Amino acid sequence: MFSRYFPILEWGRTYDRPALTSDLMAAVIVTIMLIPQSLAYAMLAGLPPVVGLYASILPLFAYAVFGTSRTLAVGPVAVVSLMTASAVGAIATPGTAEYWEAAITLAALSGVMLVVLGLLRLGFLANLLSHPVISGFISASGILIATSQLKHILGVKAGGETWPEMLEGLARAIANTNAATLAVGVPATLFLFWVRKGLKPALQRLGLSPRAAEMVAKAGPVAAVAASILAVIGFELEGRGVSVVGAIPQGLPPFALPLTEPGLLQALWVPALLISIIGFVESVSVAQTLAAKRRQRIAPDQELIGLGAANLASAFSGGYPITGGFARSVVNFDAGAQTPAAGAYTAVGIALASLFLTPLLFHLPHATLAATIIVAVLSLVDVKTPRVLWGYSKADFTAHAATIIFTLVAGVEMGVIAGVAVGLMLYLWRASRPHAAIVGRVPGTQHFRNVERHKVLTLPHFLTIRVDESLTYLNARWLEEYVLEQVAERPALRHVVLMASAVNAIDASGLESLEAINHRLVAGGIVLHLSEVKGPVMDRLRRSHFLDDLSGDVFLSQDNAFAELALRTGEIADPPDPLEARGLI
Amino acid sequence: MFSRYFPILEWGRTYDRPALTSDLMAAVIVTIMLIPQSLAYAMLAGLPPVVGLYASILPLFAYAVFGTSRTLAVGPVAVVSLMTASAVGAIATPGTAEYWEAAITLAALSGVMLVVLGLLRLGFLANLLSHPVISGFISASGILIATSQLKHILGVKAGGETWPEMLEGLARAIANTNAATLAVGVPATLFLFWVRKGLKPALQRLGLSPRAAEMVAKAGPVAAVAASILAVIGFELEGRGVSVVGAIPQGLPPFALPLTEPGLLQALWVPALLISIIGFVESVSVAQTLAAKRRQRIAPDQELIGLGAANLASAFSGGYPITGGFARSVVNFDAGAQTPAAGAYTAVGIALASLFLTPLLFHLPHATLAATIIVAVLSLVDVKTPRVLWGYSKADFTAHAATIIFTLVAGVEMGVIAGVAVGLMLYLWRASRPHAAIVGRVPGTQHFRNVERHKVLTLPHFLTIRVDESLTYLNARWLEEYVLEQVAERPALRHVVLMASAVNAIDASGLESLEAINHRLVAGGIVLHLSEVKGPVMDRLRRSHFLDDLSGDVFLSQDNAFAELALRTGEIADPPDPLEARGLI
Repeated sequence: MFSRYFPILEWGRTYDRPALTSDLMAAVIVTIMLIPQSLAYAMLAGLPPVVGLYASILPLFAYAVFGTSRTLAVGPVAVVSLMTASAVGAIATPGTAEYWEAAITLAALSGVMLVVLGLLRLGFLANLLSHPVISGFISASGILIATSQLKHILGVKAGGETWPEMLEGLARAIANTNAATLAVGVPATLFLFWVRKGLKPALQRLGLSPRAAEMVAKAGPVAAVAASILAVIGFELEGRGVSVVGAIPQGLPPFALPLTEPGLLQALWVPALLISIIGFVESVSVAQTLAAKRRQRIAPDQELIGLGAANLASAFSGGYPITGGFARSVVNFDAGAQTPAAGAYTAVGIALASLFLTPLLFHLPHATLAATIIVAVLSLVDVKTPRVLWGYSKADFTAHAATIIFTLVAGVEMGVIAGVAVGLMLYLWRASRPHAAIVGRVPGTQHFRNVERHKVLTLPHFLTIRVDESLTYLNARWLEEYVLEQVAERPALRHVVLMASAVNAIDASGLESLEAINHRLVAGGIVLHLSEVKGPVMDRLRRSHFLDDLSGDVFLSQDNAFAELALRTGEIADPPDPLEARGLI
Repeated sequence: MFSRYFPILEWGRTYDRPALTSDLMAAVIVTIMLIPQSLAYAMLAGLPPVVGLYASILPLFAYAVFGTSRTLAVGPVAVVSLMTASAVGAIATPGTAEYWEAAITLAALSGVMLVVLGLLRLGFLANLLSHPVISGFISASGILIATSQLKHILGVKAGGETWPEMLEGLARAIANTNAATLAVGVPATLFLFWVRKGLKPALQRLGLSPRAAEMVAKAGPVAAVAASILAVIGFELEGRGVSVVGAIPQGLPPFALPLTEPGLLQALWVPALLISIIGFVESVSVAQTLAAKRRQRIAPDQELIGLGAANLASAFSGGYPITGGFARSVVNFDAGAQTPAAGAYTAVGIALASLFLTPLLFHLPHATLAATIIVAVLSLVDVKTPRVLWGYSKADFTAHAATIIFTLVAGVEMGVIAGVAVGLMLYLWRASRPHAAIVGRVPGTQHFRNVERHKVLTLPHFLTIRVDESLTYLNARWLEEYVLEQVAERPALRHVVLMASAVNAIDASGLESLEAINHRLVAGGIVLHLSEVKGPVMDRLRRSHFLDDLSGDVFLSQDNAFAELALRTGEIADPPDPLEARGLI
């Protein structure tokens, strides 16, 4: 029970030397990858780059204690950084102390929400984000992020929250492009693209193993950072208008306290909730994918607590909202991390970097960080999904498209909300119109099939309706309408059988509709029967008055119902061919 | 197509003398019943009583043109009047011109929303209100309304929006009770209760037919109104502190224009939406119940347009939000109304009353109107439902109880919102954890049943999972977890069959989860098969790549799958008893 909330007690007991070696190895590689990423994503969030390092130290320890994934690497990620910029940018100006404090508060709020959701076991709420909505949101975020970084490549000032605003701002600013900045940004971007696509095959041709080639390629951004720092120093590019990171306070993260002003909390709680859920969904899918590869399991509700603790740790050490990142977790996994201790070792690496490396980053151009971000996020843009969804399901395509459009034109928060709302509306719409079929008997068998799809036998005094859905409040009204409509069309009818083989549950509203149908059919001289009611459904019906009031019987099988009622109404249950030929099919 | 939006073109074509006679007869009875009710409900809404008459004239014409129910009687009703008082009371003071204008604006907003919902065919959104939520809301509203009227019976001033506030206000004011008012209010209340329960049997004993007795009993409130006016005049009760209706402007409804201030519209749009949906749900259930009795049909989406037109008509003639009322519709039906023309004749009756009767109402005590309301709404309080729900379904009970509690302590709007939210949360929670079973073969048959409920045959290399739910984004994550957990527990496994006999649909998220399961099982050396996939589901799967990627086969029947795979793995599909005895069950 206790170790459920402290997974470290589980894996810590069997921690041994081989695990230590693997974890240390993985930590070195992830650290190298994480330093430029952390700086870049903090910049994307509108914060001083060093905040990215702060957000990559204590949270990793916290996740190591509370997280259930063996290989998830937490820290600043692109989408959550964008959401932070959007939320905090609405109430403070980037670069000010208020902005940083609001970002810290956002991390604390998000941490508290995640822990509470985890303790209440409400992880299922993340299900509200369907795959098409998530994929649309990530794609659109990728486009937004890449566009937002173009100004750093061009060396201009341009703002904008939404995509049209950003494009407009860039169009107005493009005339002021700074040539020196462009001379850094464009090569850096091209180099990083090549590192991503071309370096690994090249290294393999040189004889490296695929895994080693992969690892070396991941260090590409570090090379870009080093090269551009040298270029800035060597060519004195700062004098030519290249914007650099500048002085970074050297040392460990400061102790910080989130603000508790009611007005601020009120402004931030919705974004904090959205960041929590998006972060959780992203993180859990990465964690699940990696766990499945080694036949391990993660516990989603405990993951909420793990991520919540990591965000609280981020807040109290001057960081901003974080979550599990896809790219770094895959690197961690591929580099052989065995336990969450690898994350703790990574944290030590980042801490060392923030103690000793920050002076070296003075001359790091913003353009290089922007190039890192652009190359990283463009891989998030998924151009195949819309076409696949269009072919498979128009409803899913609609939710996907709505999410993309709202995210681009109305911002990340509205994008998530619109995606959830459209997805839910379409779901409820379908749930309120379930599939039902009039069924008849396949001649010579005990099978009953849809009259519209099969050549089957039906009888004029006797109608069987198969409802292919649980009877819930969402479709209760539909059920009444559907049954009464079918009955109204058949004046000769004397018996109606509801075949419940696909009814997995009947809630109170569904029961009330069944009662209403029963009463109305009785008033019209028609007897209502049920058939093939499932065990748990029958158990529950016995706790109500419905079975006492039901005018007809409950048949164990539809075949029994057909035989028995055909006998009662004086019709032949399995007639010879001539009857079929008379059009009773 | 045209007559779909103008149902009057349908029934108007065959309108004849017998229908005219029936409709006129019904109109007279409904008019007599509607006059005191309209005055009382307007008072409940915080408006001058005459506004209730205004809201009972033009809207009835509008509904006669656009409505699809033959017998629904629209006008002021208790619950919507309470919601109006709550919404408008939050932004204006009862008795002022601003208050009345805001009520008119609320009716206009609600009318526009209803028409738009109808044109977009969004009536299914009303499904979000489950039966337990509606019943809880109506019960709690009845308690709120009855409590709010006690001050008129006591002749004191007391306020309060929520139940605790009202009780506190009454407790503080009770010392100031006006004896004369009490002397009018208490007898009126007792008389009306007796009219409701005891008059009809008494009249029947006197030889009246049950229907005639029912009709006469409905005129009881008119008798109470007349008697109390005479009492006020005769005993000069106004001098003793009995509050009366006073001067009512004589004449037809004024032409009114709703306000269009953005601030006002912003404050009213949420209440307007809730009033629209509650009014629609109440109205449609009454209309459906009555239509079914005569085997008629109503068109819910056109009902939205009908009610919307009626509310717009109310707004433009100085009225407030209205809907179809239960009691008056039943009276209309029982009195023999054949077509919506009966509503138009009722409107003429009310118009005549507002032209000529209003001077007579000068001395009508507020206490009598309050008694009318109390007796009417206490029948809304349903004390049986909570117990029934508790026995049948804890989830439905929870939604019911939450609605009652929130309505009483946080007001009508929060009550509806909380009821919908709790109901939806519980639904989504269940939908995200569907029922699934490991199934095995019932020996000697082709049937496959849950291993936990039946003595069935399973094989160690071969697992069949039956999922009793459509695969949607709400349960996609659950599906992955469930299947992989089952697999992780069975190291000898080589084949997994997903039996899809209860899977009515697979959305894009469900498909993606199936793909993920397939890939992960392949990685673990396990082959995934499907069986009993329904026709429409199979059609859709064929439009994706899933069937190409699927490591195993799609079997038409589970029996085929069992026989074929038992053969492939070298196990016997239908073994002799000894094998069963070895514990393979």
